[in-house]
Amino acid sequence: MMALLLKSYQSLLRGSAVPRRSMAAARETAGSSKKSLDLFYDVVSPYSWFGFEVVCRYRQIWNIDLHFRPVFLAGIMKATGNQPPATLPKKAEYLNMDILRVAKYYQVPVQLVSDFFGTVIQKGSLPAMRFITAVDASQPQYVEPISRELWMRIWSRDEDIVKPESILAAAEKAGLPLEDARKILEMSNSPEIKNRLKETTDQALKYGAFGLPSFVFHVNGKPQLIFGSDRLELLGSLLESPQEHCGEAGLLYRHGEN
Amino acid sequence: MMALLLKSYQSLLRGSAVPRRSMAAARETAGSSKKSLDLFYDVVSPYSWFGFEVVCRYRQIWNIDLHFRPVFLAGIMKATGNQPPATLPKKAEYLNMDILRVAKYYQVPVQLVSDFFGTVIQKGSLPAMRFITAVDASQPQYVEPISRELWMRIWSRDEDIVKPESILAAAEKAGLPLEDARKILEMSNSPEIKNRLKETTDQALKYGAFGLPSFVFHVNGKPQLIFGSDRLELLGSLLESPQEHCGEAGLLYRHGEN
Repeated sequence: MMALLLKSYQSLLRGSAVPRRSMAAARETAGSSKKSLDLFYDVVSPYSWFGFEVVCRYRQIWNIDLHFRPVFLAGIMKATGNQPPATLPKKAEYLNMDILRVAKYYQVPVQLVSDFFGTVIQKGSLPAMRFITAVDASQPQYVEPISRELWMRIWSRDEDIVKPESILAAAEKAGLPLEDARKILEMSNSPEIKNRLKETTDQALKYGAFGLPSFVFHVNGKPQLIFGSDRLELLGSLLESPQEHCGEAGLLYRHGEN
Repeated sequence: MMALLLKSYQSLLRGSAVPRRSMAAARETAGSSKKSLDLFYDVVSPYSWFGFEVVCRYRQIWNIDLHFRPVFLAGIMKATGNQPPATLPKKAEYLNMDILRVAKYYQVPVQLVSDFFGTVIQKGSLPAMRFITAVDASQPQYVEPISRELWMRIWSRDEDIVKPESILAAAEKAGLPLEDARKILEMSNSPEIKNRLKETTDQALKYGAFGLPSFVFHVNGKPQLIFGSDRLELLGSLLESPQEHCGEAGLLYRHGEN
């Protein structure tokens, strides 16, 4: 509905005899009918994949305008002093089971990587996340399928996602013409794209993110951070009736406002 | 139903002319009709309270025989090298909001404590968990209401849970006669009870626990660990159809068995 409203709003803008009040009213209508949700994610994170697929499935039901915000998880961890949960041996052992249980529960085809340290910690995802960022800057309609194809590579088929040929293969599967994909890949090494990824990562940090996936929506102009793929039921509930859950400052439960 | 089956099973046992096959059959029937679920918890943990209330609510629907297993969270953290999540400043900030959001979502009356470090880290819960352990050893029917009353003190009214008078006040609210409560409080300092708490904590560790709440149930004789109050939907789904989710070894998704 946002798309439809925006279209008619844009055609209003293209006309010249539009009184200010109508524009404000149109904006108000769009605002009240559709909530905006930012999803901050990195394809190196399997839990981000769960969050990504579930919000993609529910965006119609929750009536949200979903914004994909590709960020660099390693940057978030470093800035906040957070450690990957698998750093703790007992937790690492448990997480292998947990990831596969949740995969089955949400029907997302995650399989474990054979070499977690080499794949996730050492190789990481920087070239992949720069590529997604460049896609977002040039052909944003491909961000969703390309992110999914990169997750399919690393977290379903245990394949590389940092070499140019790996990224081009994912782009091809996502339907991006090869020539465009090559240009975007080149563009992904430009200072503009590097900065853009850094800026989006900084914005997640500004919202209070310390890990991924992180979701942000606004209530009375105040950003609300929800962390983790294990808060999706809560996220749905908050998106449906945010006012009901708010303290006076428009924040969802800061200390003393409950 | 387990209670009913157990009662008739015990009356069979009290009789003398019970053929072995009937006993095995009775056990089999009990096993197939009711699943056993261990809940490892510590009242110092607000997320344990969410897990506790939700499994209490769902025990009839899930048809489970619920076993309360009081343990000492600080012992689990120390043994596994785990740190309280609030150790990370950004996470601490988020968790204050998260706890209150989840409290509202699950309708559990959690309020934040005014001095987290002093209450949770410095004072902790050792006398309270020893008392619950002594109740479990002597009058187990009071474990549920006493645990709840201790949570009401620390995590709803920001009251002490380590002084004798605090523990006796919680016991009184739970309906335990004062004279019994005093005896149990004395008993809670005995080597037997100290050992019993330590043993239950060690058992949680043996199952792979690294934090609380932790849930354990068995599939084909193999223990299955579920960690956290944010896996309750998954827990319900696994309890309903564990076989469907199992690999060949009877384990729920260890690597390579999916």
